[in-house]
Amino acid sequence: MARYGKRKAKKAGLPPGTLVHVGEKKTEKIRIRVLDYTEGTFEEKDITKVEDCYPFKEKSTVTWINVDGIHDVDIIEKIGENYGVHPLLLEDILNTEQRPKIEDFEDYIFLVLKMLAFDEKEHEVKIEQVSFVIGPNYVISFQEKEGDVFDPVRERIRNAKGRIRRMGADYLAYALLDAIVDSYFFILEKIGDKIEGLEEDLIANPDAKTLQTIHYLKREMIFLRRSVWPLREVISGMSRKESALIKESTEIFLRDVYDHTIQVIDTIENFRDMVSGMLDIYLSSLSNRMNEVMKVLTIFAAIFIPLTFVAGIYGMNFAYMPELGWKWGYFGALAVMAGIGITMLVYFKKKHWL
Amino acid sequence: MARYGKRKAKKAGLPPGTLVHVGEKKTEKIRIRVLDYTEGTFEEKDITKVEDCYPFKEKSTVTWINVDGIHDVDIIEKIGENYGVHPLLLEDILNTEQRPKIEDFEDYIFLVLKMLAFDEKEHEVKIEQVSFVIGPNYVISFQEKEGDVFDPVRERIRNAKGRIRRMGADYLAYALLDAIVDSYFFILEKIGDKIEGLEEDLIANPDAKTLQTIHYLKREMIFLRRSVWPLREVISGMSRKESALIKESTEIFLRDVYDHTIQVIDTIENFRDMVSGMLDIYLSSLSNRMNEVMKVLTIFAAIFIPLTFVAGIYGMNFAYMPELGWKWGYFGALAVMAGIGITMLVYFKKKHWL
Amino acid sequence: MARYGKRKAKKAGLPPGTLVHVGEKKTEKIRIRVLDYTEGTFEEKDITKVEDCYPFKEKSTVTWINVDGIHDVDIIEKIGENYGVHPLLLEDILNTEQRPKIEDFEDYIFLVLKMLAFDEKEHEVKIEQVSFVIGPNYVISFQEKEGDVFDPVRERIRNAKGRIRRMGADYLAYALLDAIVDSYFFILEKIGDKIEGLEEDLIANPDAKTLQTIHYLKREMIFLRRSVWPLREVISGMSRKESALIKESTEIFLRDVYDHTIQVIDTIENFRDMVSGMLDIYLSSLSNRMNEVMKVLTIFAAIFIPLTFVAGIYGMNFAYMPELGWKWGYFGALAVMAGIGITMLVYFKKKHWL
Amino acid sequence: MARYGKRKAKKAGLPPGTLVHVGEKKTEKIRIRVLDYTEGTFEEKDITKVEDCYPFKEKSTVTWINVDGIHDVDIIEKIGENYGVHPLLLEDILNTEQRPKIEDFEDYIFLVLKMLAFDEKEHEVKIEQVSFVIGPNYVISFQEKEGDVFDPVRERIRNAKGRIRRMGADYLAYALLDAIVDSYFFILEKIGDKIEGLEEDLIANPDAKTLQTIHYLKREMIFLRRSVWPLREVISGMSRKESALIKESTEIFLRDVYDHTIQVIDTIENFRDMVSGMLDIYLSSLSNRMNEVMKVLTIFAAIFIPLTFVAGIYGMNFAYMPELGWKWGYFGALAVMAGIGITMLVYFKKKHWL
Amino acid sequence: MARYGKRKAKKAGLPPGTLVHVGEKKTEKIRIRVLDYTEGTFEEKDITKVEDCYPFKEKSTVTWINVDGIHDVDIIEKIGENYGVHPLLLEDILNTEQRPKIEDFEDYIFLVLKMLAFDEKEHEVKIEQVSFVIGPNYVISFQEKEGDVFDPVRERIRNAKGRIRRMGADYLAYALLDAIVDSYFFILEKIGDKIEGLEEDLIANPDAKTLQTIHYLKREMIFLRRSVWPLREVISGMSRKESALIKESTEIFLRDVYDHTIQVIDTIENFRDMVSGMLDIYLSSLSNRMNEVMKVLTIFAAIFIPLTFVAGIYGMNFAYMPELGWKWGYFGALAVMAGIGITMLVYFKKKHWL
Repeated sequence: MARYGKRKAKKAGLPPGTLVHVGEKKTEKIRIRVLDYTEGTFEEKDITKVEDCYPFKEKSTVTWINVDGIHDVDIIEKIGENYGVHPLLLEDILNTEQRPKIEDFEDYIFLVLKMLAFDEKEHEVKIEQVSFVIGPNYVISFQEKEGDVFDPVRERIRNAKGRIRRMGADYLAYALLDAIVDSYFFILEKIGDKIEGLEEDLIANPDAKTLQTIHYLKREMIFLRRSVWPLREVISGMSRKESALIKESTEIFLRDVYDHTIQVIDTIENFRDMVSGMLDIYLSSLSNRMNEVMKVLTIFAAIFIPLTFVAGIYGMNFAYMPELGWKWGYFGALAVMAGIGITMLVYFKKKHWL
Repeated sequence: MARYGKRKAKKAGLPPGTLVHVGEKKTEKIRIRVLDYTEGTFEEKDITKVEDCYPFKEKSTVTWINVDGIHDVDIIEKIGENYGVHPLLLEDILNTEQRPKIEDFEDYIFLVLKMLAFDEKEHEVKIEQVSFVIGPNYVISFQEKEGDVFDPVRERIRNAKGRIRRMGADYLAYALLDAIVDSYFFILEKIGDKIEGLEEDLIANPDAKTLQTIHYLKREMIFLRRSVWPLREVISGMSRKESALIKESTEIFLRDVYDHTIQVIDTIENFRDMVSGMLDIYLSSLSNRMNEVMKVLTIFAAIFIPLTFVAGIYGMNFAYMPELGWKWGYFGALAVMAGIGITMLVYFKKKHWL
Repeated sequence: MARYGKRKAKKAGLPPGTLVHVGEKKTEKIRIRVLDYTEGTFEEKDITKVEDCYPFKEKSTVTWINVDGIHDVDIIEKIGENYGVHPLLLEDILNTEQRPKIEDFEDYIFLVLKMLAFDEKEHEVKIEQVSFVIGPNYVISFQEKEGDVFDPVRERIRNAKGRIRRMGADYLAYALLDAIVDSYFFILEKIGDKIEGLEEDLIANPDAKTLQTIHYLKREMIFLRRSVWPLREVISGMSRKESALIKESTEIFLRDVYDHTIQVIDTIENFRDMVSGMLDIYLSSLSNRMNEVMKVLTIFAAIFIPLTFVAGIYGMNFAYMPELGWKWGYFGALAVMAGIGITMLVYFKKKHWL
Repeated sequence: MARYGKRKAKKAGLPPGTLVHVGEKKTEKIRIRVLDYTEGTFEEKDITKVEDCYPFKEKSTVTWINVDGIHDVDIIEKIGENYGVHPLLLEDILNTEQRPKIEDFEDYIFLVLKMLAFDEKEHEVKIEQVSFVIGPNYVISFQEKEGDVFDPVRERIRNAKGRIRRMGADYLAYALLDAIVDSYFFILEKIGDKIEGLEEDLIANPDAKTLQTIHYLKREMIFLRRSVWPLREVISGMSRKESALIKESTEIFLRDVYDHTIQVIDTIENFRDMVSGMLDIYLSSLSNRMNEVMKVLTIFAAIFIPLTFVAGIYGMNFAYMPELGWKWGYFGALAVMAGIGITMLVYFKKKHWL
Repeated sequence: MARYGKRKAKKAGLPPGTLVHVGEKKTEKIRIRVLDYTEGTFEEKDITKVEDCYPFKEKSTVTWINVDGIHDVDIIEKIGENYGVHPLLLEDILNTEQRPKIEDFEDYIFLVLKMLAFDEKEHEVKIEQVSFVIGPNYVISFQEKEGDVFDPVRERIRNAKGRIRRMGADYLAYALLDAIVDSYFFILEKIGDKIEGLEEDLIANPDAKTLQTIHYLKREMIFLRRSVWPLREVISGMSRKESALIKESTEIFLRDVYDHTIQVIDTIENFRDMVSGMLDIYLSSLSNRMNEVMKVLTIFAAIFIPLTFVAGIYGMNFAYMPELGWKWGYFGALAVMAGIGITMLVYFKKKHWL
């Protein structure tokens, strides 16, 4: 989901099921990695010819086929054909603007999700689409490019850590889902830091940059919210065990991911409320500062304008102005001015403007 | 749906089923195009006498009757009569203010939708009502005027591209629906561009024109939202396969359109939130700028008003003013003024006003 | 529903079923008109003695008894008694503050609705309560005063236009409902005009009157919304054919009125959003204008205050002020002033304040 | 429900069912009034010994035991014990912060409600908790203090007005409920008056007091809303005739009260919207006024500052200032000043600031 | 739930069921207290070896094992293993960021809740997570540190006060829940006090500190809301008696806690509305004050600037200025000035600026 809703349009007009890659164009080669395991055996290899990943469909071992890169339509189409994936779903895999969703077929479950990463350089949340095809004994995952949050899962499979090698493809799917949802917490932490910093700024020294940060955070929050909200339905759709592919023992784990998703959504709502509140506070403190500026101006004007007027009077050149001849006229005038000035100060003091 | 809710009123008071065209009056002739096909055969022709499109009702081929223009009530009535369409529905076809809806009868499904187009000249989203009557082996579509988003579908039928020639009238209906929903993405992209431009303006140089653009976008969004929201129910109503007219094989395609509709709605909500946020930012930056203006004023006033006062004092004409006679009196006065000025500058520096 | 929730209170404390007219007191005589018809026969008369409308209850013809005026409690009570209407419902008929609702009894359906009219003189939406008692072969309608939106229906009955004379009392009830809902479109059109005019004002020349119009529209919208919202349930309650009184052939017509009601509600929501947006725009443009005023002030102050200060310096009366004696001192001072002035102008030009 | 959520806390830590009076401490004696009646008989008496109200439980007559004052825990406990009321409910009776609710037991229904009264002196809505225990042939009502809205009901029982003496305890309960809900209309009318007055103020002469009134109304509305909203569930809970204690003949009356409750809630929502709108209008008119003040300032400053500057120039003491020696110099200077002043006035006239 | 959503992230990447303490690191020893009782017997002891609390699982007495401190993962794991708690739940116990929830297993119910305390020193609501494992005859409670709101429950068990010793583990669980929910009222009372104080400040003397307090309250409210909202589901989940572990006699007590929870949520919503309203009022009063400041400035400027101008005129040094030579010129000028000043004052008086 691009921030300004673009890119999707170029597909309009094509017959449904036409495979077109919608997303940033990339030129690197697609990388296909296979992890194949049972409780006792383990095999990991990179596949160079797409046909090499066909046989796993029939093998009784659990197989995870990870496809990094979806810009080569041919490869995706071949895998899809071999594993019996509906052309409309292949279209969804290729369209990186797809909304997170779940489709439940008889012999596989199809998932689209968003993987989030925080780009430290551009200070922006980067989004990558991940699609899963979950079969009885395989999981195929499609990503936009190399680099993901699945390394801990790979490590656990390699080292037979935890129960993962003893469980089936549904547990593997869960483990991948869990890794994605867990990674959201990193993003939230980053944003939490920003909000905390912003809050301090807001109190200490709010300026136009504060406003920009608030605006940026609001936009990111809108954007995040739209990416994460549908996840709720997706995961609850999986855990409602309508599919024979999800074993009962995996249920409780899915419920756990669901809990985490709710927590992510909760935190996002939380942040939204906080950022909204900050804008109000910012506006208020702007008004406050305007008040202060106005007071300074008013105090100066109200004290010195009358004084200048008095000085102006005795600067007049009338031939007959008795005070001008008085010995103490000058000092008297100064005293009157001082009196006016002090009166004004007392008045403002009383009004709590000083 | 006109932006200011007009036009509908003129029908009030007539008996139900009275056919009156509600919309912009047009004078061109209505154009009726027929596409008739099976997997092996294909025929396309323009019909001049409305009676010529009656026989297709009984033919086993799939027929698409496309009516461009609904201002000639007679023609619409005749077609309706021949194809057994309820008079109230004919009324809906003629009333271009109709809300998108679905009506499910035993031997046909009736749909009203909105087709959107972006008018580059007036920078406005133009809306056109399209109604469909979907029978067992025909689809009749009614548009307000020539020019639509169905050309790719026609092309696919002509060239037997994709599966369209192998499928029935329900798939044809889907293909038309899909073309309409896909076209919404064009509109969204246009609006996305505007929002992106606006966001840059907002930061670089917000002015009264920015405000007008925000206002314009808000209104367009309200308007779009009302056009697209009901679509959700319409399409989900179709795909819930309550009608025998929709074959199971078409289900998955309808679900796909449904997905796209949700995505359109999502993006609209997204944009709404963003535009709302922008107004807040705009207001804040107005306040910010007011603050800045006030500061400039205050700085000038607070520095020069006291100085002018000092000059005023020594402009007084008292006979006895000792300082006036001093040799360094003038330079002393200048020095005092400079001192006051510098003090003020330091003070404002400290307050971060400079 | 009065705008400030009044009038209802005076009934508090009376036993339920006590008939008291709650509404503006009127003195004119109540007018009872009867239209009695079958497909072939038609009779229309004004009734002077309330007892004269009793016999229609048993006749097999369709009868519409229209009561204009509800301030004569006696008459209402007698009709109610004869037609077996529950005393609590009679109370609802008499209480013009009643919320639109439907009550479904075994042998009659009871409806309360609001009829809207736009008072051109007071520029306000006027509301009138209409109640219907729909029996197997009669409809009794109660209005607050003469003058309604039913004349086209009467015309159709008199002239046997459309199907009305061929259908039963349920269709008559539908026709009356339809007339009421259709009349809402007139009101909406009026308000749409106002909003459109307001929008132009807002851009061209917003002033305090604009604010008042916005306020007025907001209040009217709140008021309208509360009148129309319950209608949705009322009509959907009727069309869900739980009552034997509503024949299946009338179903589709009721669904049509329902559609119109939704459209009315949609338009009201639409208008609400638009008017809300306008207030935001109005506030923004106020801020904008304030900014402009401030700029003018600041420019004048910032240019002339320093100049006046310079003039003040050379107005001092020190005995030893070398510049005063210089031949070109005066012109030099003027040049310095001009220099300062031009510098300030350039500065403001750069800040885009000019 | 106290406005600031207090008082409840002091009970924390006690075992459930511990009877503690939570509310304003009172010292007057509790008053117990009994009305006992059948269609033919009627008895009314004040009871001094709590044991005297035990026998009514078994009598076949309808009995209304009205307890004014709940600060004497002993008495409440004894009544509760005799009539078999669960200790947790007694706790609810004693806790005046209880939320309106219904509890449906086999042999009695328990209700908590809020009775509202407008305190003319403090201009505040006063709230009093009323609890009902509705048995097969008795109603026990508990109030915080003497004085209630039930006098018309008492009157109807005494004088056998209406049907009340012919009906059972469920109708009595309805009559009391109805009296409470009817009394809400008084409160709404009071508030409606305030809002109407406020609206006039807002247009004629908005000041800081207007703001306070808006604030006060907003708070009262929040407060009222929270008191009345749960009532909806309570009454609908009663009228859904799940309990054998509510006879079918009473159903329609309960539905009538329900209608009134909806109307009360509607009006409150209505008022909330109106008051919210008023704050917006108030803020706008503040901005409007600020604009006006600024304009006055700017006009004065922009006219006289340049003039003063001109006067300053000719007040300089340069030895060589040719204009000073001119015969018409003075009048020329005055003319120039007048010219500047008139120019400025024309300029502001053009800007519509005058 | 930390205010800025932190801490959770560090767990990402670990296999599910890996026990890691997520929360503030603590070093004190974990304290395990056991209360074991039947109606007749009672035993209370601190356990030093975790194995000592294993035997209670099989005993028929009711046992409450209270674990203060969850930073020693080993101990928690051992208890969990012995009592058959699922590893994912142990993870939840250790993760102090867990959202309140209920998990219903066949032989135990698992609850996570938040215990709130008001830290008088930091003026902040402190939160502590409490988890319960409720078995047929035992309750295990896990807290983050010593110090809780359960002392009254302990007291009641020790002294056999109320029914607690006669009831089972489900009633004990209820009593603990009740203690927690009751403690929320303390927090609400504290916040209620703050709001009340704030409201007085707002009217008497609003300043920047008021704004900070509003901001603080808003944030606390967001935070509280998120902690308490899920509780609603948790408790309603328990009381819907789906589990055999909850006896019917405990139902009514759970319903009572549920009522209290609703009341807590109601009050929080109430407070939120009030605090929101306050921000509006604060902003309005800022504007009001700005208006006042502007008026003072404008009055001073508008009175003295013209006067100074007049003085400036007669300070000019033109050779021929007839007025200067007049005997009463000076006093005439003073009179003119006084006239101007008084005129201005009258003008401002009329505008209600004085």
